[in-house]
Formats: sequence, structure tokens, C-alpha cells
Amino acid sequence: MVRHIDSEIQMIKETVLKMGGCVEKALEGARQALLSEDPRLLKTVQEQEDQINVLEMKVDELCMQLLAKQSPVAKDLRFVIAVTKINTDLERMGDQTLNTVRYGLEFFTSETKERVPADLKKMFDEVIEMVRMGLDAFSRVDVESCKKVLHKDDEVDALKNKLVQMAQDKMESKAWTIDSGIRFIMIAKNLERLADHVTNVAEDVIFLATGKDIRHGQGAGSESLKA
Amino acid sequence: MVRHIDSEIQMIKETVLKMGGCVEKALEGARQALLSEDPRLLKTVQEQEDQINVLEMKVDELCMQLLAKQSPVAKDLRFVIAVTKINTDLERMGDQTLNTVRYGLEFFTSETKERVPADLKKMFDEVIEMVRMGLDAFSRVDVESCKKVLHKDDEVDALKNKLVQMAQDKMESKAWTIDSGIRFIMIAKNLERLADHVTNVAEDVIFLATGKDIRHGQGAGSESLKA
Repeated sequence: MVRHIDSEIQMIKETVLKMGGCVEKALEGARQALLSEDPRLLKTVQEQEDQINVLEMKVDELCMQLLAKQSPVAKDLRFVIAVTKINTDLERMGDQTLNTVRYGLEFFTSETKERVPADLKKMFDEVIEMVRMGLDAFSRVDVESCKKVLHKDDEVDALKNKLVQMAQDKMESKAWTIDSGIRFIMIAKNLERLADHVTNVAEDVIFLATGKDIRHGQGAGSESLKA
Repeated sequence: MVRHIDSEIQMIKETVLKMGGCVEKALEGARQALLSEDPRLLKTVQEQEDQINVLEMKVDELCMQLLAKQSPVAKDLRFVIAVTKINTDLERMGDQTLNTVRYGLEFFTSETKERVPADLKKMFDEVIEMVRMGLDAFSRVDVESCKKVLHKDDEVDALKNKLVQMAQDKMESKAWTIDSGIRFIMIAKNLERLADHVTNVAEDVIFLATGKDIRHGQGAGSESLKA
């Protein structure tokens, strides 16, 4: 039997995935903007971010309607609560992507004449892959994919630390101005925060799948899940 | 007539305010730790942060129970949705406070021998006041207090920019090492993010009070509300 609530849940799911698709496009645009040092690509990122903001409000509205009309329980209720949180994280990922590309364009079009370092390219690739895995995990409500996301977050953190250290060395040796170095660090910090938001999404999907709250090492334990 | 749902809403409200009280205590501990250069106060902040994490899960649980048992509509439903979001912001404020005090203690107990600059003290005071105003706005569901929070966020951003510029100048003039300067910038950035989370809380309270979603300049319009 098809329940009416199922079609509403399906519509919410599709809207969230559409929003996630915009985050992916924004991130790819940001990566491309830096690789090609093309400030025109900022507009592409901005357009995706506008779209994300519109979809965020749409998702909240759909969730409110479902809660008010269908009074969901059990897994349906968990779905709505998880989506409410995932929605916020996706929206902030849009903001972070915009920050990243802004700092990035300032840096790579400034006097430093630097090409994008291999580790930064790698960090972009890792974050983009995390986003894909996180959305896939949400789409299929798949705990295994969530564990992979949690694991990848550690790799991204390590890359961020390497990049901050690199910037620090370049500033100390005067290869980069202080101004440029700070901008570069902000690129790495924003990408790290993006990865943190994907991690939140993965934790919410685990809650949706299992009913367990694994935040703060509770429930199944985020540590054991990371292993 | 007293509805059963009212006592549940009251309990959620009290738990959120208790959590907010922990954020205030953590922030005051962080401020004091830096002013007195006392690393022992880190423990105080950590204790509050642990408490915040426990309360975050409690609030989500209470909201889930209320949704499942009471099927709230209209303002009651808005309350639960707003709290679900506020809960996340308060938890991240706990994280940010811990980051702030960690970077701060590293900075102020390092070789720089600096006292806390007046603008940083001011930024702490502004953020602590924003938190108080945000919690008060939530407690009384008061739109006017929310507008004040949105306004104050601009002041905090201006202070952050001043402090980042100061750190940049100090690094350029070699008064501070690159290492110390980066730490100092991280203090200012974390306080700025704390203020952003309070801004989110204020926006959620406006939604709770009016049913209007003012994010992204929609509804009543965040710009007009800021004026």
C-alpha cells in the first residue's frame, strides 16, 4: 500500500538531493575558478549559492507541512528531523564554498603568482568526494557510506594542517606576504569547515537509519564508527 | 485550560535555557582564562562544553517525543522546529568557545608577552552580551531583542576585521611571530563565528514569533529588520 506520506517524503528527499547537487556544482565551480584563476567563475558559484538558499527555505516549508498534516512517527519522524538538520548543513556548505572561492581568487590572482598547490587540489577533491558520498549515503540511507565520510574527515583535517603549515613557512621565508598567507589559510579553513558539515550530514543519516544519536561519542560511538 | 503539551514545551524551553546558561558560563570562563592567562580555566570551559553536549542530545530527544506524542501544529510546531535549530547552534557555540580559549591560551601564554588588547576584550563583551540577548529573546519570544542581536552582529564583524588587521600589522613589523599572529587571528575568527550562531538563534526566534522565515532577506527581510 502506498501511503500519502511516502510521496511527501519522496518530494522532500528529491529537494534535498537537488540542493546537494547545487553544493557539488558550487564546489566544482570553486575548484575550477582557482585552477584556471578565472574570476568569472565566481558568478557560477554565486548562482548555485542563491539556488541553495531558495531550496533551504523550500525544504523547511515541506518539512513543516508534513509534520503538521501527517503527524509522522518512528522512522518518518526521524526522517523529518534528520532533514531539518541536514538542510542547515547544506546551506552552510554553500556559504563556505562562496567564502572559499572568494579567498581563493584573492589569493591566486594576487601578486603571489602561485599555482594551486597539489595538497590544496587534493583537499578540494577529498571534500567534493565527501559531499558525493554524504549525499549518496542520505539517498540510500546507508550507514556504511556514512562511516566512510567520517573516516575521510580525518584525511581532510590532516591536509588542512599541512596547508596551514605551508602558508606559515612561506610567510616566514617572505615568499608570500602576510596578507596572502592569511588568505591562503582561510581557503584551507573554509574547506575544513565544509568537510565538518558533511560529517554532520553523515551523523544525521546514521541517526535516520539506526535511531541512534552518535554525536559526542554516544550511541554506537563515533569513535568505533570511525574505525 | 492547561494543555499537556504546555508542560512539555516548558520543559524543553527550560532545558534550552539551561544549555544557553552553560554557553554563557563557558564564554565567561574563556574570557577570564585569557585575561588572567590562567590555563586552569580551560577545564571550566571544557566542563561546560561537556554539559552542553549532554543537553543537546536531551533537547533533541524531548523534541522527538513531543512531535511523536502530541502532533503539534501552528505555533507549537514552530516552537519545536525553531528549538531543533537553536539546539544545533548552541552546541556549536560550545565548540567555538573551546576553540577560542585553546587558541587564546596558546597565544597569551606564548612568547608574545601580550596583554589582551582592548578590542579583543570588547569583542568578548559584545559576544557575551549577544548570547544573553539571544537567550532572553528566546525566553520571551521577543522580536525586538532579536533585531538588537542582528544589529550587534555587525559590530562584532567590524571588531573582528580590526583585530585581523592588527595581527597582520604585528606580523609584518615582526612584533609577533607568524605562528602567534595566526593563533590570534583564529581567536577573532572563532568569536566571529560564535556571533554568527547567535544571529541564527535570533532568526529562529523571529520565525517562532512571526512564522516568517527572514533568512536570505526573505519574509520580513533581514536587512529591514537590521535597520
